[in-house]
Amino acid sequence: MKKLWGARFNKGTDELADKFSFSLSYDKRLAKYDCQTGIAHTQMLIKSGIINKKDGNEIIKGLKTIAGKIQKGAFKFDSKAEDVHTNIQQALKKIIGEPADKLHTARSRNDLIVTEMKMYCKEELANIISHINALQRSIVRFAYDNKQTVIPAYTHLQAAQVVLLAHFMLAYVEMFERDKGRLLDCILRTDESPLGSGALSGTSLPIKRELTAESLGFYKPTENSIDSVSDRDFIVEALADMAIIAMHISRIAEDIIIWATAEFRYVDIDWSLCTGSSIMPHKKNPDIVELIRGETAKLYSNLNEILVLLKGLPMTYNRDLQLDKLPLFESVDKIKEILVLMSKLFESLKVNKKSIDARVKDETFFTVDIMEYLIKKGVSYRKAHDIVGKIVKECLDEGNSINNLSVNQLKSYAKEFDLDVKKLLNPESSVKIKKSYGSTNPALVEKQLKKWKSILNG
Amino acid sequence: MKKLWGARFNKGTDELADKFSFSLSYDKRLAKYDCQTGIAHTQMLIKSGIINKKDGNEIIKGLKTIAGKIQKGAFKFDSKAEDVHTNIQQALKKIIGEPADKLHTARSRNDLIVTEMKMYCKEELANIISHINALQRSIVRFAYDNKQTVIPAYTHLQAAQVVLLAHFMLAYVEMFERDKGRLLDCILRTDESPLGSGALSGTSLPIKRELTAESLGFYKPTENSIDSVSDRDFIVEALADMAIIAMHISRIAEDIIIWATAEFRYVDIDWSLCTGSSIMPHKKNPDIVELIRGETAKLYSNLNEILVLLKGLPMTYNRDLQLDKLPLFESVDKIKEILVLMSKLFESLKVNKKSIDARVKDETFFTVDIMEYLIKKGVSYRKAHDIVGKIVKECLDEGNSINNLSVNQLKSYAKEFDLDVKKLLNPESSVKIKKSYGSTNPALVEKQLKKWKSILNG
Amino acid sequence: MKKLWGARFNKGTDELADKFSFSLSYDKRLAKYDCQTGIAHTQMLIKSGIINKKDGNEIIKGLKTIAGKIQKGAFKFDSKAEDVHTNIQQALKKIIGEPADKLHTARSRNDLIVTEMKMYCKEELANIISHINALQRSIVRFAYDNKQTVIPAYTHLQAAQVVLLAHFMLAYVEMFERDKGRLLDCILRTDESPLGSGALSGTSLPIKRELTAESLGFYKPTENSIDSVSDRDFIVEALADMAIIAMHISRIAEDIIIWATAEFRYVDIDWSLCTGSSIMPHKKNPDIVELIRGETAKLYSNLNEILVLLKGLPMTYNRDLQLDKLPLFESVDKIKEILVLMSKLFESLKVNKKSIDARVKDETFFTVDIMEYLIKKGVSYRKAHDIVGKIVKECLDEGNSINNLSVNQLKSYAKEFDLDVKKLLNPESSVKIKKSYGSTNPALVEKQLKKWKSILNG
Amino acid sequence: MKKLWGARFNKGTDELADKFSFSLSYDKRLAKYDCQTGIAHTQMLIKSGIINKKDGNEIIKGLKTIAGKIQKGAFKFDSKAEDVHTNIQQALKKIIGEPADKLHTARSRNDLIVTEMKMYCKEELANIISHINALQRSIVRFAYDNKQTVIPAYTHLQAAQVVLLAHFMLAYVEMFERDKGRLLDCILRTDESPLGSGALSGTSLPIKRELTAESLGFYKPTENSIDSVSDRDFIVEALADMAIIAMHISRIAEDIIIWATAEFRYVDIDWSLCTGSSIMPHKKNPDIVELIRGETAKLYSNLNEILVLLKGLPMTYNRDLQLDKLPLFESVDKIKEILVLMSKLFESLKVNKKSIDARVKDETFFTVDIMEYLIKKGVSYRKAHDIVGKIVKECLDEGNSINNLSVNQLKSYAKEFDLDVKKLLNPESSVKIKKSYGSTNPALVEKQLKKWKSILNG
Repeated sequence: MKKLWGARFNKGTDELADKFSFSLSYDKRLAKYDCQTGIAHTQMLIKSGIINKKDGNEIIKGLKTIAGKIQKGAFKFDSKAEDVHTNIQQALKKIIGEPADKLHTARSRNDLIVTEMKMYCKEELANIISHINALQRSIVRFAYDNKQTVIPAYTHLQAAQVVLLAHFMLAYVEMFERDKGRLLDCILRTDESPLGSGALSGTSLPIKRELTAESLGFYKPTENSIDSVSDRDFIVEALADMAIIAMHISRIAEDIIIWATAEFRYVDIDWSLCTGSSIMPHKKNPDIVELIRGETAKLYSNLNEILVLLKGLPMTYNRDLQLDKLPLFESVDKIKEILVLMSKLFESLKVNKKSIDARVKDETFFTVDIMEYLIKKGVSYRKAHDIVGKIVKECLDEGNSINNLSVNQLKSYAKEFDLDVKKLLNPESSVKIKKSYGSTNPALVEKQLKKWKSILNG
Repeated sequence: MKKLWGARFNKGTDELADKFSFSLSYDKRLAKYDCQTGIAHTQMLIKSGIINKKDGNEIIKGLKTIAGKIQKGAFKFDSKAEDVHTNIQQALKKIIGEPADKLHTARSRNDLIVTEMKMYCKEELANIISHINALQRSIVRFAYDNKQTVIPAYTHLQAAQVVLLAHFMLAYVEMFERDKGRLLDCILRTDESPLGSGALSGTSLPIKRELTAESLGFYKPTENSIDSVSDRDFIVEALADMAIIAMHISRIAEDIIIWATAEFRYVDIDWSLCTGSSIMPHKKNPDIVELIRGETAKLYSNLNEILVLLKGLPMTYNRDLQLDKLPLFESVDKIKEILVLMSKLFESLKVNKKSIDARVKDETFFTVDIMEYLIKKGVSYRKAHDIVGKIVKECLDEGNSINNLSVNQLKSYAKEFDLDVKKLLNPESSVKIKKSYGSTNPALVEKQLKKWKSILNG
Repeated sequence: MKKLWGARFNKGTDELADKFSFSLSYDKRLAKYDCQTGIAHTQMLIKSGIINKKDGNEIIKGLKTIAGKIQKGAFKFDSKAEDVHTNIQQALKKIIGEPADKLHTARSRNDLIVTEMKMYCKEELANIISHINALQRSIVRFAYDNKQTVIPAYTHLQAAQVVLLAHFMLAYVEMFERDKGRLLDCILRTDESPLGSGALSGTSLPIKRELTAESLGFYKPTENSIDSVSDRDFIVEALADMAIIAMHISRIAEDIIIWATAEFRYVDIDWSLCTGSSIMPHKKNPDIVELIRGETAKLYSNLNEILVLLKGLPMTYNRDLQLDKLPLFESVDKIKEILVLMSKLFESLKVNKKSIDARVKDETFFTVDIMEYLIKKGVSYRKAHDIVGKIVKECLDEGNSINNLSVNQLKSYAKEFDLDVKKLLNPESSVKIKKSYGSTNPALVEKQLKKWKSILNG
Repeated sequence: MKKLWGARFNKGTDELADKFSFSLSYDKRLAKYDCQTGIAHTQMLIKSGIINKKDGNEIIKGLKTIAGKIQKGAFKFDSKAEDVHTNIQQALKKIIGEPADKLHTARSRNDLIVTEMKMYCKEELANIISHINALQRSIVRFAYDNKQTVIPAYTHLQAAQVVLLAHFMLAYVEMFERDKGRLLDCILRTDESPLGSGALSGTSLPIKRELTAESLGFYKPTENSIDSVSDRDFIVEALADMAIIAMHISRIAEDIIIWATAEFRYVDIDWSLCTGSSIMPHKKNPDIVELIRGETAKLYSNLNEILVLLKGLPMTYNRDLQLDKLPLFESVDKIKEILVLMSKLFESLKVNKKSIDARVKDETFFTVDIMEYLIKKGVSYRKAHDIVGKIVKECLDEGNSINNLSVNQLKSYAKEFDLDVKKLLNPESSVKIKKSYGSTNPALVEKQLKKWKSILNG
């Protein structure tokens, strides 16, 4: 295959060097953007009088033919052509002959590739937002289906207080809402077309960059040609956003893995998301959730990779930049799969109400409620904390329970105690007495559920 | 020092464990926010009738006294108290006695610490934006001062085309403008107050979270108590934004280091930012710029660190989260210093016009201009590229120059050539003939300079 | 303070630049190596006739005085002197006057700093090995103390098979043994003295590098002066070794955190390594173990940091290299603390035999034993796996247990079954019947325990 | 395809979950090790009397057939079978029928996969060592071919001193020699067979692990079954070793990229390793070297990835561990390609003696030589440094050169100067007068060259 730049060269490229610099295997997913860009660019070249209509229209027709084939998966990439641009260029030449030689007028691979990467990025980040929406919906539905369930919540993986399962689930929904905000910000910042920046300095041909920007769905053209071909911020930002999503999901995965142990037994993961053991016939393992947790490592490291790649690169384009693609493509593919699988997880997750109900009877879940009982009666926080600490300690030491203490015993800790304190010692009361905005109070949680349902289905 | 949680414990903490979990050495920079939060919280407790006015006002007065000392640097931290909250609590007790025991009513260190970290983050990200503004101003001023200078620009560190130095500088300004956008987005997303979320479930005391949110300058309270105490997104996002800034600066640093070599000799870094050698008396080394480049490694790794820290942590608070502080504090400190030093660099940078002028005479800088000359005369891009490639190759092989070629020699390459092509062979012409938006055309660059001056000084 | 290199400079360094490049705050821990290096170097200079005995001896005497003060913590660092070398140099001048000017003969800060860093590294890696030894001893002792205990082991955090707790503990010991091997390899590879390599090219003075190498405890001098001043491999390797140690410990920490939940309740962490809650008086949180897990993030990122720092640095010394120190110092400090705390953890860890014994009664732990029972009777692995899978499924579905099945019921699954299969259904039998080398068989584990005791106490 | 573990499952796996957990696409490169392991294991099962000879021999024959096909690339993987083990198992069943059901006797995928990964690792690290050897040979040959060439060496990218190009090249050779040492250490530490550790606890069948260890070329079996199936240290260590190699090569790449600029012009990279520009016909870009530098980011991040993956995983096997393969495979593939390309680079690299000779005339390269001239005459280092600094400053300020100074002028700086100092002012003298071991002295460098030639060709 003839390269796009061979004229001055008196020697072919080394074979391994060709293989090493070969990008078609991954950049071919940009093929559709390469056609779109070519079409928009050619339309502009015609309008600007840089190429004649006849040639231009042939180019456009040819590119549309190619685009059609690509869409149907019928386009045959030539693995001897080094990259996606060369492939499209060469296919065009085969179809329309000489006019194809004008396609690359007033553009450079430097501005072309970054334009296509931005188009890819915008489209895929929007797709990820949709996937997050779907996942949020699954979680909200799961929360609705288990609206009455009160579960233990943990700090330091030590049982802390009880909350509504629905309240717990909405914490996940909040996390994902921030993720969507970040992705949207990134899309907006990516929404400027670099096309027409040339190799780095612009061009002396009378191109109209606002036209291509508009046809390609960009808000406007970029402002500085040097920055345009050097900038890969949008990839770093997208990878950072996806790393945070992965972090969120790794935390959820950990919750689920722990909840699904025989020892906790709060949930059952559906068989369709588990696998067994080649040696232990009794096993039902949460493999998919573990793999999801594991992929976090890749999502993180792809972010690190692009940052390391860019470190200390002098302006403007350096070939190192070719390597910006794989980490982005990989992370996009993975995060989409993970989001869909998480949706499936919540759609099929079963709650073990029996196990949970047994667990939330533990009195220590209600110590804060008792403390606040005292505070309401005028005891200072400090004293209330000490009093309840003492009761807990002595009950545990003596194998006793607060519920078993007589009024006198209670009053020996604090005169403010009365028998009504025992009404606090159950999970339903514990969630109901919460009052603060954003708390696990059932009425407030119900409101939140409704709000989310309406937002997500709107 | 008495701990805030000792009641149930029958044994002191191990000494090394105390040292290992000790956070005062770094979290003391949160002291001012701890006071502000305490004051806002107490005002709300009074208004909500949870504590009485008398006690409340004493607390507020005490905290104001402490805040005053902190501001003057006169507050003595007690290194035996494990963290900043305990320090302030204990100081308050010393000043006002028993009422101090009510300060911690209806709050937990879980919601407290994340509130203070958000306040810190918002304030410091705003500071970083100011520093970026200052740096952009320095760069624009430097660009103005060298408005006529045409320099070589590189791709692959191989001389590519000439551009206005001012145009090159404005590429930097664009990079930083995106950085500011990212920081602002992060500030806005951080602008929700977690205070009042309690340990994780909210509280049964009738607090008013919107009041504390407002007094502390937050847009509104957070929506979900579990998410509130678990969320560290804002730290990851801030560290990602700073990593990108560092990446930008590492690229600028690399440009400057290369330009300052004896071999390029385009700029002289001011003596005040260089150091010498303990063994080679002739050396003038760009140490500060190298250190700036080097610190990129820390800025990147702090981002990686917080992500790794959070990976797979089950909900809600885990003690691992304490370790979110050092990476954030370190990156904030470093990036601010780096931004100031970069300002100083551009304020004192000298341009070696003589060296540059000698260098931009090289004809190969103008090959694209010649190619576009042919395209304007109707030659296809493909043919024009081949023709110019051939001329360059033959000139280089024969030690000749395009300027030396006769009309006939030129026409032997392409009949479209005429003598006027030689007018293209100089740097001034090369920048002037550029026409496209965002290009290095002097009139367009002048416009951009004015725009930036007005934006940055506005 | 006069700098070591100021002669050619006509301007002082910028104040912030001074602060930014200031390394004394951390490199002062190299002070003792700076004195040792100075003494060894001066002795060599005398022997080689490069400086006279009188001056040389004064330098040596002066450095010994300084070294003495440093050891006693009585040396006053001058924070106006930029680095440790300048501090020692200046202190020497104050004590002995002019002869001090000869100390830096035939050496450069480039070879000096890398020599001192190697000395530091060798010493501290050896210290870490000792700490690992101590930790291994604590674990072996803990294993001995609980020699009879049979615990569940997990794959995918799902109960898999039972093993001796001691066997489980020896898995940790194996991990640490590899860590020691890696550290030792690193020490050996670091054991070459760069001193005498000058700025980068060596020196024309007749120095004897083998003498300084020997006095400073190096195996031999390095072979190439350029490599000597550029090489930081030993730091990367040391940080990689420490990152792996941290990884190991993060896994152990996770085991312990899970085992210490109320839901598993296999172990009790000593109170001295736990903390409580400022709001929930009943909490006993495994903070230290969590912080240990959390510090993994820093240990990992320090490795990443040094790699990023070194990426693409041209030969030879660049000022970026100054930033190799903090990550190394930090990781060394942290890993030592962590190792000591892990020792304390195992020394005070209590086993909840009652909870464990209740848990290991679960029949599903013995499915592999039943499967191998069938294999021993000639059933193929594939069939045996299917048969046992079927039994488990049907027992679980019907709420039945294998122990309750009659001979006929058993034989309906496989004619090879007899009542003796029920002898397999207990934890003691399960560990005893294991036969393979490295398995949990009590006799084999006993042998391993003895081996380790003898190795670690030897 | 039937899974190896389906018996207890009443539902198929979700389709996307199947795709997500599918590992065949990458683990198929372990197929040859899977056959070897199967053969060795079966031979042992026969010898131990666990399966009968007839069945065993059929299995062995069948596996040899499969292995033969794999070697010829003729084995057809079934993409419906989830992993490599299932593929081989299923192919065996097709060939030999029922006896295939006994292959998996007394083994688990947990011990199997880690055995195969260790075999892969040992083989590939040895391959990498060979590639490094080849690269070292190329560099030494290049050094020989340019034995007389004296080049500038840099600190801070500022010209520092001159050295022999051969000396510079041997610095690279030293770096790679350490790399080989690290790889060898890793191979030795990986040389223990986990096979026979079962799922995690060993087996009750009378297997002989020392037999399989020996047949598979391991030094001995591992000591602890739990550690055996959990351990991935060897992968982390291998990735760390490769990250350091990549770091070394990134530094060399940077040197070459800088040396190949028109401004330095010290070397010409062969056309076969360069590419041109689609828009600038004159360009000859060092793409391959840039891509090599860029791949450093991936090599680093793969190390980070495996560490993050392993962080905080509880014992023993977790499905996350499946994700250990891609980073290892990727890094191995890349580093091998990079090493071969670096060999090609040095084999075809041309030295621009003319440019270099012009550059090394610069007097400032010799300031250390002048300083040492004074020291030899009894001037203290400190004074000598100041004197030469002053000369340099005044010569630069006045556009003068040291060579132009008269005796009197020289003596005005220091009475020790005589005209013979001017003999120092040339590159040949500068390298010759170096005396110290490891310096750039031509005789010493010649010795080193011979040593390396003999080591590398031996």
